[in-house]
Amino acid sequence: MGEQDVAGRTVLGRALALLGAFEHAPDRRQTLTELAATTGLPLTTVHRLCAELTRQGVLERGADGRFGVGLKLWELGMLAPRAHGLREAALPFLEDLYEVTHENVQLVVLDGTEAVVVERLRARNAVRLVSRAGGRLPIHATSGGLVLLAHAGEDAVRAVVAAGLPPYSPSTITTEEGMRTALALARRQGWLELRDHLTVGSTSLAAPVIVKGRGAVAAVSVVGAAGDDPVRLVPALLTTARGIARALAS
Amino acid sequence: MGEQDVAGRTVLGRALALLGAFEHAPDRRQTLTELAATTGLPLTTVHRLCAELTRQGVLERGADGRFGVGLKLWELGMLAPRAHGLREAALPFLEDLYEVTHENVQLVVLDGTEAVVVERLRARNAVRLVSRAGGRLPIHATSGGLVLLAHAGEDAVRAVVAAGLPPYSPSTITTEEGMRTALALARRQGWLELRDHLTVGSTSLAAPVIVKGRGAVAAVSVVGAAGDDPVRLVPALLTTARGIARALAS
Repeated sequence: MGEQDVAGRTVLGRALALLGAFEHAPDRRQTLTELAATTGLPLTTVHRLCAELTRQGVLERGADGRFGVGLKLWELGMLAPRAHGLREAALPFLEDLYEVTHENVQLVVLDGTEAVVVERLRARNAVRLVSRAGGRLPIHATSGGLVLLAHAGEDAVRAVVAAGLPPYSPSTITTEEGMRTALALARRQGWLELRDHLTVGSTSLAAPVIVKGRGAVAAVSVVGAAGDDPVRLVPALLTTARGIARALAS
Repeated sequence: MGEQDVAGRTVLGRALALLGAFEHAPDRRQTLTELAATTGLPLTTVHRLCAELTRQGVLERGADGRFGVGLKLWELGMLAPRAHGLREAALPFLEDLYEVTHENVQLVVLDGTEAVVVERLRARNAVRLVSRAGGRLPIHATSGGLVLLAHAGEDAVRAVVAAGLPPYSPSTITTEEGMRTALALARRQGWLELRDHLTVGSTSLAAPVIVKGRGAVAAVSVVGAAGDDPVRLVPALLTTARGIARALAS
């Protein structure tokens, strides 16, 4: 692993840079040339790396010659306890919440200064979500991110402030004071509502999944149209969060 | 990448062997010593590799010091078009099928001589499934695997026969002739029913998702108790498979 490139990346670092490049391709497939352009790696390196990764099943080559992430990597990723384990325990409860509300339902976890969407049930007639399962959301502009941050301690709050609070809509919280007020509210009432913070026209409602001894391990959120009164969904949201916590504790 | 160990594994090969080891841990977490035992790699190598993989976010270390697959790898795996892309397109249809049947619903794809479970909606009051999302199933003992093999061509059939047809229950198809009869039936009627082939007491029904120009890309299956008459579910299964094919083609 000592072998490093000019950017100081190891073999594994280069392989991960290559795999991350597929996020930027609209259909998740790229040619060797596109991969070299996205990663900044020399074409010969990309060629060699893709050959080995394909041999290992980490990449797959389509009939059109373009590469994509392979089933093998997906299978290994499914072993992640914090994503897949959580998702397996939570899915039946998320489905119940979806059946009751017919709104978009999401399950998110914190990772550093961002929120990661572990599961998303998309309602067919509800507002469009900007998120996707496996995608990331800004903590300060999403109700799920904020209810998790409310239970994550002072260091986590400082890190999110330091990473910046950029606006996504005219309603986004962009000041530390504004965010701390929202965090205090989330802690006090046990849930948080945000209107138009990430996307204009959508309202989200989130509650933390709190497991004894492990803290707030995830947040459940319901994302609907701004015109509705989402607060009526709070009891259903809270029972869902508690159901997931119970399943995780057992 | 030239650096190889005694087993001829490259850095990437060793990293993948390490990641695969978590499949065998009941809660998907292992200590350094356990990882060395499972992979056959020297403890010093495991130590060095885990340190780098943790730095890259591919592994995560829990409060108890044990390692597990990290969120980062899960996110990269979610970029796999053949698993996640398919799953995102299929999920609404699978949910509808679950609502209508209240049985276990699965989506599987072929990978080599095995079937990989891409999604699984588990019915709470239905028979227990041996599968899990991200897990593998034997093709010859599952209806989903067989309907896919029925459209995969002669080479694929020969490879499955060559890999062996071990019994999982007294009803499992264990001869090439028996399997070819089932494949012909699946092709002729467009679906296949299997009783007690993987687990005694469960019946499964599967249909292929056929996309023009791409063939049978996945199979949908319904797994229920053996006492029921699952054939009454065939129309719902076929409309689900067609709905997914339509969503994938557009």
